[in-house]
Amino acid sequence: MSEHTIKAFDHELEALSRRIVDMGAVVEKVFGDALDGLTACDVNLAGGIVASGPRLDALRREIEGSAIVIIAREQPVSVDLRECIAAIRIAGDLERVGRRSIDIANRAVVLTGESFSPRAFIGLKLMRQFAAKQLSGVLEAYTQRDVARARAIWLGDVELDALEDSFFRDMLTFMMEDARNVPFCTHLLFCSKNLERIGDHATNIAEMVVWMVTGESMPIERPKK
Amino acid sequence: MSEHTIKAFDHELEALSRRIVDMGAVVEKVFGDALDGLTACDVNLAGGIVASGPRLDALRREIEGSAIVIIAREQPVSVDLRECIAAIRIAGDLERVGRRSIDIANRAVVLTGESFSPRAFIGLKLMRQFAAKQLSGVLEAYTQRDVARARAIWLGDVELDALEDSFFRDMLTFMMEDARNVPFCTHLLFCSKNLERIGDHATNIAEMVVWMVTGESMPIERPKK
Repeated sequence: MSEHTIKAFDHELEALSRRIVDMGAVVEKVFGDALDGLTACDVNLAGGIVASGPRLDALRREIEGSAIVIIAREQPVSVDLRECIAAIRIAGDLERVGRRSIDIANRAVVLTGESFSPRAFIGLKLMRQFAAKQLSGVLEAYTQRDVARARAIWLGDVELDALEDSFFRDMLTFMMEDARNVPFCTHLLFCSKNLERIGDHATNIAEMVVWMVTGESMPIERPKK
Repeated sequence: MSEHTIKAFDHELEALSRRIVDMGAVVEKVFGDALDGLTACDVNLAGGIVASGPRLDALRREIEGSAIVIIAREQPVSVDLRECIAAIRIAGDLERVGRRSIDIANRAVVLTGESFSPRAFIGLKLMRQFAAKQLSGVLEAYTQRDVARARAIWLGDVELDALEDSFFRDMLTFMMEDARNVPFCTHLLFCSKNLERIGDHATNIAEMVVWMVTGESMPIERPKK
């Protein structure tokens, strides 16, 4: 490749990476609004993002399309090819984080007006804080190509699993104490499952960052609580 | 490319496609054992597949690795490149179908010995039948590059969503009638959510088959019930 072609190619890879960062920011906003909407019982905030699915889908498709065009036209190898493949996979995980958040927002809208104990939210708020930290951390690790940070996020996922387990037990108790808690607690259980899966997607992205930069795969077995 | 090189390349693509078909068969077995284990309360059957996660992960990684080697070495374009990208994405969806099935198997093991009403299984069995049909159908559509079949599967997913919705209401009633039903029904609710997501993964694979063969993307909005 001529120097001029190499520069143009670098610009294309940079643009691809920037699209991922931009999509990450959109997904973080959807996540934040869904969880604020749920825990503050703010139906407007939650309702504002329930229709974001097609936008997330479009962002993912744009990233996939760009990556495939680069692969077909520039025929990259080694780290450049890994950048393109990682972009396709990370966009998929980001879309799923958004879809999970939208599921939470839908439940926040359904739950408006239901009677409930505010204590039920405590465990969910802890999970939300932790998932938000994992998500923003892995997006920074991607932006800075920070392998050490990505590995730390990969290892941290066990804490979210432990929080979900504890929340699950808590909700069962609530429901068995009083049947009127059943609909509300059932929805919160699905919200906590969504948060746990959002953590899994952050872990997937962390694996992608490590692989993209180093070419190494993380161990097949993830750490267990 | 010389004729000899083209033939070798075709063999590589065929081998990649065969790996997907083989992984599909493994995933269908995991799915079947998990659901039989749950609905027949057969703890041995369910317990036999709870440790399949690393195997599924390894199968996905092998497919990704093969696809990336083909892209880097053969620098395919158009339908050949789409075959490689689709293999990466389909392997990801298949692994997730397996993971969801393992989650169901884990719950089947937890539920062993719990008292419950067999009536609770009726809705779940309907969902299982439908999800199994979608999964085997989309794997056949992939094997035969059958775009019409893939489109039909894509459209069929709404029925599974409707079955899940009805099962959700059923379980709420059970739990509110008798608090002793709460732990059992909660696990079944997560099983039905897993079945609904397995249907989503079949739909994702259907989209991939259409795109792989034709280069066309399915509409961003999926049909709604």
